[in-house]
Amino acid sequence: MNALERLAAGLARLPGLGRKSASRIAYYLLGADGAFVQSLAEDLAALQRTIHPCGICGTWTDVDPCAICSDRSRDEAELCVVEEPRDVATIESMRDFNGRYHVLMGAISPIDGVGPGNLRIASLVERVHHGGVREVILATNPTVEGETTALYLVKALKSTGVKVSRIAFGLPVGGDLEFADRQTLSRSFKGRTLVQG
Amino acid sequence: MNALERLAAGLARLPGLGRKSASRIAYYLLGADGAFVQSLAEDLAALQRTIHPCGICGTWTDVDPCAICSDRSRDEAELCVVEEPRDVATIESMRDFNGRYHVLMGAISPIDGVGPGNLRIASLVERVHHGGVREVILATNPTVEGETTALYLVKALKSTGVKVSRIAFGLPVGGDLEFADRQTLSRSFKGRTLVQG
Repeated sequence: MNALERLAAGLARLPGLGRKSASRIAYYLLGADGAFVQSLAEDLAALQRTIHPCGICGTWTDVDPCAICSDRSRDEAELCVVEEPRDVATIESMRDFNGRYHVLMGAISPIDGVGPGNLRIASLVERVHHGGVREVILATNPTVEGETTALYLVKALKSTGVKVSRIAFGLPVGGDLEFADRQTLSRSFKGRTLVQG
Repeated sequence: MNALERLAAGLARLPGLGRKSASRIAYYLLGADGAFVQSLAEDLAALQRTIHPCGICGTWTDVDPCAICSDRSRDEAELCVVEEPRDVATIESMRDFNGRYHVLMGAISPIDGVGPGNLRIASLVERVHHGGVREVILATNPTVEGETTALYLVKALKSTGVKVSRIAFGLPVGGDLEFADRQTLSRSFKGRTLVQG
């Protein structure tokens, strides 16, 4: 196989791309601007070397702590808990939330062998125990796994006495936080209901 | 912007990918197998350096002439004319055609400023004049541009006296050759109608 065939085969392994769309992209790249293709290749090569989890919130970042965790203008008292780093970017694009984040790196899913011990839950409880947090906003996905995780976190945070809220179900149930539009996401933040405290 | 953000922005420029699907792929790549991501980056970096048009048929190849043009077991007497290099791969995947190819690198489209002079038509006529070709199979797309190009080629090849055929409209009109399934494509090859000679 040559670079064209290998590239098409590689792209076909990416989420959302089939064999034909991958091949279409590979042929497009052959005729695309050379500088653009090279910078894409360089970013790809540098990706896993330069991007790491933030030592505090767990999101992907090229500096540690990440830009959000080290931004003193952000409210430490509000802590938003999400499943994945991409959820941080999604919520940031809403521009409505000025608190901090905690990324679980997944959700409880017994069928996939993911239990509470596989998630960044201990460091969440520790962060809250450490003080300064007034409210934990649970922004896990409105799926069975996300709901299970939210319920688990309510119990896990009980001893801390902190206020715990859940974002409102403005999100379509069964969907994925990543695909919510700005308005739906914004409403679900505003309509969050108090769960505890 | 860090490598993650640049990569997501770059991927969003590719055909068929929006901002959200590009971002999803970028996050996926962060967690993907490191060797896979590196080989993808290397193939991307090597793409435009190692892949060139074949000096005979014009398709993308890493050797010149390409594997098809240099394969002596393939029938020189049947010459299939297509718009794009990816069409060669599509027809090859059918495994029904054992002749040679000629890639026009586009189709006549006055609205896009593409005339016969911008396509590999002179080299096609020259190839046929050179001898050894018994039939030219026109496999341009079943679109206005593809049809216009096919009609133009019939005239351009008239002086050569060679048999010229057009693949049958088993393909959905207005569609793109690239998205045809194997059966439709195979039928359109078998049902090709004689246009001249």
